[in-house]
Amino acid sequence: MAGPGIRLGELVERFGGELLGDPEVRIVGLGTLRNAGPGQLAFLANPRYRGELAATRAGAVAVPSSERDATDRPRVVARDPYLFFARVSSVLHPPPPVVPGVHPTAVIERGAHVAPSAAIGPHCVVGEDAVVGERATLGPGCSLGRESRVGNDSRLAARVTVYDSCTIGARAIVHSGAVIGADGFGFAQDGGRWLKIPQVGAVCIGDDVEIGANTTIDRGALEDTVIEDGVKLDNQIQIGHNCRIGAHTAIAGCVGIAGSTTVGRHCMIGGAAMLSGHITIADRVVVAGGTAITRSVAKPGVYAGVYPFEENAAWSRNAVWVRKLAALARRVRRLERGDAALGEEDEE
Amino acid sequence: MAGPGIRLGELVERFGGELLGDPEVRIVGLGTLRNAGPGQLAFLANPRYRGELAATRAGAVAVPSSERDATDRPRVVARDPYLFFARVSSVLHPPPPVVPGVHPTAVIERGAHVAPSAAIGPHCVVGEDAVVGERATLGPGCSLGRESRVGNDSRLAARVTVYDSCTIGARAIVHSGAVIGADGFGFAQDGGRWLKIPQVGAVCIGDDVEIGANTTIDRGALEDTVIEDGVKLDNQIQIGHNCRIGAHTAIAGCVGIAGSTTVGRHCMIGGAAMLSGHITIADRVVVAGGTAITRSVAKPGVYAGVYPFEENAAWSRNAVWVRKLAALARRVRRLERGDAALGEEDEE
Amino acid sequence: MAGPGIRLGELVERFGGELLGDPEVRIVGLGTLRNAGPGQLAFLANPRYRGELAATRAGAVAVPSSERDATDRPRVVARDPYLFFARVSSVLHPPPPVVPGVHPTAVIERGAHVAPSAAIGPHCVVGEDAVVGERATLGPGCSLGRESRVGNDSRLAARVTVYDSCTIGARAIVHSGAVIGADGFGFAQDGGRWLKIPQVGAVCIGDDVEIGANTTIDRGALEDTVIEDGVKLDNQIQIGHNCRIGAHTAIAGCVGIAGSTTVGRHCMIGGAAMLSGHITIADRVVVAGGTAITRSVAKPGVYAGVYPFEENAAWSRNAVWVRKLAALARRVRRLERGDAALGEEDEE
Repeated sequence: MAGPGIRLGELVERFGGELLGDPEVRIVGLGTLRNAGPGQLAFLANPRYRGELAATRAGAVAVPSSERDATDRPRVVARDPYLFFARVSSVLHPPPPVVPGVHPTAVIERGAHVAPSAAIGPHCVVGEDAVVGERATLGPGCSLGRESRVGNDSRLAARVTVYDSCTIGARAIVHSGAVIGADGFGFAQDGGRWLKIPQVGAVCIGDDVEIGANTTIDRGALEDTVIEDGVKLDNQIQIGHNCRIGAHTAIAGCVGIAGSTTVGRHCMIGGAAMLSGHITIADRVVVAGGTAITRSVAKPGVYAGVYPFEENAAWSRNAVWVRKLAALARRVRRLERGDAALGEEDEE
Repeated sequence: MAGPGIRLGELVERFGGELLGDPEVRIVGLGTLRNAGPGQLAFLANPRYRGELAATRAGAVAVPSSERDATDRPRVVARDPYLFFARVSSVLHPPPPVVPGVHPTAVIERGAHVAPSAAIGPHCVVGEDAVVGERATLGPGCSLGRESRVGNDSRLAARVTVYDSCTIGARAIVHSGAVIGADGFGFAQDGGRWLKIPQVGAVCIGDDVEIGANTTIDRGALEDTVIEDGVKLDNQIQIGHNCRIGAHTAIAGCVGIAGSTTVGRHCMIGGAAMLSGHITIADRVVVAGGTAITRSVAKPGVYAGVYPFEENAAWSRNAVWVRKLAALARRVRRLERGDAALGEEDEE
Repeated sequence: MAGPGIRLGELVERFGGELLGDPEVRIVGLGTLRNAGPGQLAFLANPRYRGELAATRAGAVAVPSSERDATDRPRVVARDPYLFFARVSSVLHPPPPVVPGVHPTAVIERGAHVAPSAAIGPHCVVGEDAVVGERATLGPGCSLGRESRVGNDSRLAARVTVYDSCTIGARAIVHSGAVIGADGFGFAQDGGRWLKIPQVGAVCIGDDVEIGANTTIDRGALEDTVIEDGVKLDNQIQIGHNCRIGAHTAIAGCVGIAGSTTVGRHCMIGGAAMLSGHITIADRVVVAGGTAITRSVAKPGVYAGVYPFEENAAWSRNAVWVRKLAALARRVRRLERGDAALGEEDEE
């Protein structure tokens, strides 16, 4: 006699964790600690929101073991409450079913192969000899270049552009405005003018990759730009030609990666960080948001380099000394040597 | 016996200010101090351009009271000359009239409601059950998702994307390439892989909002991302899921705001600034361009944190000391304590 | 009895350099030192890749004179091996031929002029009185505004937007998602609200300009935003209203330039740099990636200002002192004056 949603007990059976409270509670949706009501599962992962746990009206909550007694709501004590929550969410919110077919306003060029189970939206263009895999969906206004390939079960939102000869693997999610395979930025100086280097590589994207809105990934100059399996890219990221992004690396919004840089596997790059070209980042490196990585990083670890903000007047007083740091250090050395009198002249 | 344009006297009657000189001068357009000619109104707001006031050939100028005698052109002494100029410009350059109708190449899905006074451009897609308000205009190639809403008198330029269930209020202006409602960047770690968290919130945008070209605003994970009334967003801004941007806040180009951050009302965020996630910015905070705001800001004021640039060699000499600052400070302390001899060893 | 490709001897005759080895080697393509095989030309320009020269299996290599004996492959000793390589690449990879014609799904508004030799892709819109020059190509989904102009031999990739009245010169390359001519970010404060300043200038782009994917160039407020001949812009660049970018300047990805700033000719701006508004940058200025240029730069040279990254704990220890630099400098001065005892109190 199933009601709507899923029994809390069943969720624990499927996804693990220790259940405290009524296993018959039915979960129909998800919510935040602050706003969830009966029937909704909430979670506590970020300690910032701990204060909201006591007062939550959620039907059930997922909590870490440290908070097992911080509420008397039905609860799941999970090693990783966020992962528990994510799994429940995946079950309650599966992607919409694919309605196969090619919209009459779409243009399928000759030689293109669109799987019968794929869905091609209005005003799409599928270029010559391009391939769209089984159950793949293209939102309105997508453009696939000649000989490009989109793998099975991949979903392109509206207005995604894939240039000629680029490949996207299976189960990708690509958001609107993303541009895959535009020319890399390659020019030679030629007597004061710039001579364009034809960009004859492509972009090769693995399986299970997500690409955010308005993110751009340039095609390689000679060889391919490569995005390995499981990489997650947020919005407005720029990846230069011939970069390689290692499997299962996640990159937050507004990051720029200059050409020919290799990022390892399982890295996390914070928002608005930037990576110079022609460098190599080891596996499992974490870069703090806003940090400029200007040299290769050989060891896993957390790296940062952000100018600390403060009130403008204070910043301004301190910043003048940033430009005199070497001189200040010389003055300290002179003091240490006991000849301070020479140090002061015009340096301040 | 009206000529073309508007009498200077009438402009002052409508918009305030003190008129010095001939009220019968007719203003037909606007120009810069440097290039305006007869019939054009110029203004002085930025003191940088003060030197151009004496030589201007503008038909009239709007000036602050400090400059009332700095020219003998017909002039309007205004408390805020830029505002006076803006008001005149609004009158002389109203938005183009809306020519109602749905272009034959546009696709209107079932259940969508397009107001008869609205204008839908070529190759647009209006999704199922979407609503387009009175006198709203969609430029070529816009895509509105299922159940999305665009309010009265809003104008979307070419190639704007609005995902399912997102709402834009009245009198919005949205520029090309903007993406409203793509998935927020939410993943849980799952044994070295990333498990996507379905993003089931939406984006809710108030009235009188302007959104720049290629700006992206992500949909919420559980609840909505909210842009309040009167917010002005420049180009290439990224706003993460579940942010709230307070009314009448203006954000310049290339700013990134990570998820779940709340920005107050009447704030001004300078270009290329970045805001960390899960923080709160008070009302009336001003952030200097290029500043990374990594913690909550509780008090109104101006905040900055930008590395001062200089010639490369000098930067390079000084920057090595940024990485030895704590050590340098220890050396100063030792000197203060009188045991400098211990300080020098290997720190330089 | 010509085989495929081009004789190495002929390439040297056309593009200069000193040939060492067999002039009859035929070059059919290009490759990297590491992966090139027979028939492919590789090059060494970046000393980073020098180690790969000895082991290369390339059919021929272009090298600087310093490396003339570092390989015994057929080779061209060139003053600028990268330029030699670029020239060969241009010859081997010419742009694809233009297939003239207007796709039946494209919309050409009244008064527009499309040259008979031009190619207009599917779902394009060419606005009223717009002009598309000889042999120009528009990829799928491009939108040209009213009275806009695209010069001869220019190539717009898929989904490029050009607003009303904007001009692109000859031989331009514009990548997908670029937006030319959206409104500049101009508002006047009006009692706590923002009053929009109509942006009545346009964008004027010279000849031989390349514009990267998702780059945005705003129209001027009163006068035009100007991009001079030969400028090369990478992806995701934002150029504010009324900027002028001097001829043959190259700007890397993710750079933001605020309004009314003038950049000189032959400049190179590194990725993710940002330039404040209302400043002037001299000719031949080089800005390091990630640098914030907050004042005018009057002299050619290389400028930098990037916070050096390090491991997070070390950064964190040092960064607290950035906010106490002025105080630290005062303490040093007191030590120099011999009254250090006063210095220590509450400053640490």
